Amino acid sequence: MADGTNGRAPGKVLDRTDLELFEHIEKNLYTAVLADSLDELGFREQAMRETIRPLSPGAVFAGWARTISCVDVFYTCDNPYAVEIEAVDSLLPGEIAVVATGDSKRNAPWGELLSTAAMARGARGAVIDGLVRDVRKIESLGFPVFATGIKPVDSRGRGIVLDYNRPVNCCGVVVTPGDLVAADFDGVVVIPAAVTREVVRMATEKVTRENHSRAELMRGSYLRDVYRKYGVL
Amino acid sequence: MADGTNGRAPGKVLDRTDLELFEHIEKNLYTAVLADSLDELGFREQAMRETIRPLSPGAVFAGWARTISCVDVFYTCDNPYAVEIEAVDSLLPGEIAVVATGDSKRNAPWGELLSTAAMARGARGAVIDGLVRDVRKIESLGFPVFATGIKPVDSRGRGIVLDYNRPVNCCGVVVTPGDLVAADFDGVVVIPAAVTREVVRMATEKVTRENHSRAELMRGSYLRDVYRKYGVL
Amino acid sequence: MADGTNGRAPGKVLDRTDLELFEHIEKNLYTAVLADSLDELGFREQAMRETIRPLSPGAVFAGWARTISCVDVFYTCDNPYAVEIEAVDSLLPGEIAVVATGDSKRNAPWGELLSTAAMARGARGAVIDGLVRDVRKIESLGFPVFATGIKPVDSRGRGIVLDYNRPVNCCGVVVTPGDLVAADFDGVVVIPAAVTREVVRMATEKVTRENHSRAELMRGSYLRDVYRKYGVL
Amino acid sequence: MADGTNGRAPGKVLDRTDLELFEHIEKNLYTAVLADSLDELGFREQAMRETIRPLSPGAVFAGWARTISCVDVFYTCDNPYAVEIEAVDSLLPGEIAVVATGDSKRNAPWGELLSTAAMARGARGAVIDGLVRDVRKIESLGFPVFATGIKPVDSRGRGIVLDYNRPVNCCGVVVTPGDLVAADFDGVVVIPAAVTREVVRMATEKVTRENHSRAELMRGSYLRDVYRKYGVL
Amino acid sequence: MADGTNGRAPGKVLDRTDLELFEHIEKNLYTAVLADSLDELGFREQAMRETIRPLSPGAVFAGWARTISCVDVFYTCDNPYAVEIEAVDSLLPGEIAVVATGDSKRNAPWGELLSTAAMARGARGAVIDGLVRDVRKIESLGFPVFATGIKPVDSRGRGIVLDYNRPVNCCGVVVTPGDLVAADFDGVVVIPAAVTREVVRMATEKVTRENHSRAELMRGSYLRDVYRKYGVL
Amino acid sequence: MADGTNGRAPGKVLDRTDLELFEHIEKNLYTAVLADSLDELGFREQAMRETIRPLSPGAVFAGWARTISCVDVFYTCDNPYAVEIEAVDSLLPGEIAVVATGDSKRNAPWGELLSTAAMARGARGAVIDGLVRDVRKIESLGFPVFATGIKPVDSRGRGIVLDYNRPVNCCGVVVTPGDLVAADFDGVVVIPAAVTREVVRMATEKVTRENHSRAELMRGSYLRDVYRKYGVL
Repeated sequence: MADGTNGRAPGKVLDRTDLELFEHIEKNLYTAVLADSLDELGFREQAMRETIRPLSPGAVFAGWARTISCVDVFYTCDNPYAVEIEAVDSLLPGEIAVVATGDSKRNAPWGELLSTAAMARGARGAVIDGLVRDVRKIESLGFPVFATGIKPVDSRGRGIVLDYNRPVNCCGVVVTPGDLVAADFDGVVVIPAAVTREVVRMATEKVTRENHSRAELMRGSYLRDVYRKYGVL
Repeated sequence: MADGTNGRAPGKVLDRTDLELFEHIEKNLYTAVLADSLDELGFREQAMRETIRPLSPGAVFAGWARTISCVDVFYTCDNPYAVEIEAVDSLLPGEIAVVATGDSKRNAPWGELLSTAAMARGARGAVIDGLVRDVRKIESLGFPVFATGIKPVDSRGRGIVLDYNRPVNCCGVVVTPGDLVAADFDGVVVIPAAVTREVVRMATEKVTRENHSRAELMRGSYLRDVYRKYGVL
Repeated sequence: MADGTNGRAPGKVLDRTDLELFEHIEKNLYTAVLADSLDELGFREQAMRETIRPLSPGAVFAGWARTISCVDVFYTCDNPYAVEIEAVDSLLPGEIAVVATGDSKRNAPWGELLSTAAMARGARGAVIDGLVRDVRKIESLGFPVFATGIKPVDSRGRGIVLDYNRPVNCCGVVVTPGDLVAADFDGVVVIPAAVTREVVRMATEKVTRENHSRAELMRGSYLRDVYRKYGVL
Repeated sequence: MADGTNGRAPGKVLDRTDLELFEHIEKNLYTAVLADSLDELGFREQAMRETIRPLSPGAVFAGWARTISCVDVFYTCDNPYAVEIEAVDSLLPGEIAVVATGDSKRNAPWGELLSTAAMARGARGAVIDGLVRDVRKIESLGFPVFATGIKPVDSRGRGIVLDYNRPVNCCGVVVTPGDLVAADFDGVVVIPAAVTREVVRMATEKVTRENHSRAELMRGSYLRDVYRKYGVL
Repeated sequence: MADGTNGRAPGKVLDRTDLELFEHIEKNLYTAVLADSLDELGFREQAMRETIRPLSPGAVFAGWARTISCVDVFYTCDNPYAVEIEAVDSLLPGEIAVVATGDSKRNAPWGELLSTAAMARGARGAVIDGLVRDVRKIESLGFPVFATGIKPVDSRGRGIVLDYNRPVNCCGVVVTPGDLVAADFDGVVVIPAAVTREVVRMATEKVTRENHSRAELMRGSYLRDVYRKYGVL
Repeated sequence: MADGTNGRAPGKVLDRTDLELFEHIEKNLYTAVLADSLDELGFREQAMRETIRPLSPGAVFAGWARTISCVDVFYTCDNPYAVEIEAVDSLLPGEIAVVATGDSKRNAPWGELLSTAAMARGARGAVIDGLVRDVRKIESLGFPVFATGIKPVDSRGRGIVLDYNRPVNCCGVVVTPGDLVAADFDGVVVIPAAVTREVVRMATEKVTRENHSRAELMRGSYLRDVYRKYGVL
């Protein structure tokens, strides 16, 4: 587990600072302004592809990435759920389950029972670059899940969890355990652990400038004048 | 019409047993648990691809499959709607129109008027592996329709109904007339006629076990303990 | 700007007739019946692909096309927003921003601030064959936008506006500045400037026949009888 | 068979003029210059997609289109080859079998025996927007075939020939029986029957200008000078 | 390794019967006729997709499947080649390396050195549903390789061999260790171990009938007469 | 032209050192070993996608990148070839035309006349992430061209050259003017100007180790022993 990880160690206990950070992002920031701040720092491939969508329109979260790697299989092995159970049971408060399947359309590795279990462990959300099922029940739980599609099939004989706490590629973004993952209706953004504070600070400042731009545009100003004044678009 | 069909003859009159079966599935079961039961019996390719989605979030149905085959055309023939009219007018109470276009993105073979006509015949829903139009009006009708996309074009000069009551492939599942088709927000599952009762019985029993699992997970149990106890995930 | 354009000159001031036309289309017609009328006149490629979807289910508009061409870039140029600002600031009342990116999945050239600016200029909507961001805020504005996906990234260093008021291909339809663009939940239809009045007249008449068909089907008539009587499906 | 066809009637006997035309195209012209001439006359969608490739690098032909329509099936019907046999047996000298499958990757409707049969009837080549098999044997025959892929499966239970002598779409081009089809290593071009002579005349003339351009460029001239002089690129 | 395997045990020593079987297939049979025989026995999904192509036109082989599973990775692990080396070193005479990557376009898990090593072990060929490199050198070796593409990148940090001797899906066919794999210019066919002798017997017989059909067609007979007489197409 | 470029200035005169470098790469190195050396230095996205293929199997080149950007258009502008002519006429000895179309399948921006003109200027090859035509004639010229497909249509009214000497993305690699581009049957690799010498040095050294590995494997050694000894695979 030593190789491939950086920043915050997975398994670190959530403290009050983390919680305040997550709540600040969820209430005051949004993925677009976080993506812009990442761009300014030269991190330009941190927004997941447009194929990732929330199951519910109101799904919003921020948390530390806990990565889970799946792979398609074409036979039923002895303990198909062994690593999956271990991975989900080890989730900690403040974490986001980031499940990477390589864009599989073959099975639905996430559903209601895993959502319930993850929620019980204190996880703040889940992102799957693959299919999910039990969607209406997940919505009832109020657990925010992002996925690339919906299909009512179980993973047994279709895919297994191979590993967890390793860097994965999820919808085009390499996610390292301990990165910050933020999601809202516009999509999912991954902030490398080392620049989390810097990105949040920049984004918070940019929100103010955007508020000014918006207000002037609503009063009928031309884009050229607003852009000249605030430098945001 | 002899070749290619099996199980329940298309055109069989709906009796009370059928109706009770459909209502039991619609009220107490769901596609995920039906798919799991099919898996256990070795029918592992019975859930349609994730590209099939309900037009309305609340669309749910169960019924006997009535298959309809479409093909793209690139000219306008004399009676473009002849077989289509015949197919829809022959729908019987308790049937689901399963319209196979080979994933065509060229035309929208289903819309409001066909939905109205199908409903008038007693059909319980429609599945199209292609495009539909008049979506808001279909929603108003309350007729549950699943499709792979929406586009406002008519089929005239773009596609024709070639045949009906033949086995078709709809979103990856071979559907034979008389199979049971069940659909909800998670997708569409096809139960071969010969195992309908068995699958429904197994699914009904599995729902109980899932209820126990869910309850224990909600109380904070770990997945490993719940899975050891109930064997469902 | 002379080459490539036809019909109504872009930049023409909106008069009362235009406004009445747009409101008639938005209230009484719909894209499906407009597409059918275009078909009858031989304009068979005027409905955009099914990949274009409204951000909000209630998004409906009609207006004159103002085309904007984007292209992906892989470096940050000096004034990345220069032509974009000029294009949006030049929008006129009654126009629809038709933004063509060649189906780019790389950046989101449209968002809340451009929507606010376009609305302030009197534009009636926007169609982008690419990604957008700030979707919940655009919904709050009440500005109807159609797009092919959602991703929270800015265009800086990813794409630029190259030109405007040129013919573009947007989701499979060649749109010339001054064409009429109509959109609703079924999708987006483009009516060439030269046949606008004719198409609207035919569509208005066809709506009446469809109302008769629908009423008879709801009363239980067979499709074959209704089609024989009204000739619409 | 009356609807949908135009120009030369399918089934017309090949005369000496036809043969001279085909041989002139095969020896002196090429698809690129034919495509340019079609462009000049406003026929801009007459070159098949890049997915169509010759089985042998030397495959070249010109001839009248004889269209054949296939459709995927998911059951084995009684006489699966009935219409296919009828279609191939009815090929006439000078014709090209244009087999449209809707880009099916499911079966290989063309192979060695059909090539042998077509050749025996005097056909000059075949174009399939689908898969073929027996490729090395077809190469040995010397019968020029263009296809979109190779797979060793038979059509029985996978696809049937539905019809022939109807307009079809083959790799993006609508082909009407009696159109002229020309093919070489650059691809396949379809010349509508009505403009065959005009296109061939223009192409013949353009070849001369291109020869001059090439000669000057080879001597080291700049493109700007050569283009100014000959107007071809 | 017990689960998932059937038929001939991987690791079985090649005997003279095997060798005669392989040579009979390579010299007298071909994938098309093997696919037809499999069809007749109801094994209809045994031909790999058209995306698998030989690196050299003359590549032909038959042998027992030795399966190897790869998975994409996004970090460099400690011994990236460990399982790969073990898998290739364990190849036995008469075996075919069937490398499954899930259609990865990310890395090239096969190249010249693995081909050389496999050849030294007595392997008769390799099939990769992914990319390869060192293609000209592999051609020089005379080792027949089928792949879905060519790219000059190493697997280190891009993919790892996860496992071997497990059922895999390779270009649409589930391959179990010990199945017979046959390949030629038309593609790759997989014969389940249990029906190998039966399929080879049927194919051998069918070749004779096809020879008759071909001969008569070459003499100018019509398809309808030849098909009536020999029943093959 | 200042922004976006780095390393060697485009337009620099070819000197003897450059020529020796190119010839060393073409004769002694290959893209696979260059890609491995780039990997070791942390440049892991420098090999173009597998969709780029040589028109002729023997096509090999090394040279400085001269980038050209194309964009699809849907109307015919006044001087459609103006920038294209300027770009090609400005090519210098030792340069490679790297033509980026954004993977367009719409037109063929490169053909025989441009190849002839580029060759006359001293260019060593061309790479197009799009279609080409006149392929047999380009082969006769002996000018090495890599492209993603073949179609016989001209660019007029389909695409224009927008710009040149700007960074472009060609088949997944960002190419900056002045980068070194090397190509052979395995594909195309781009070496950033700043590390050219370092990469060539490392690759030259690695070729030796691979020769040893190959020789031992051919003598029957096991991979595990060879890899332990030379550390290359």
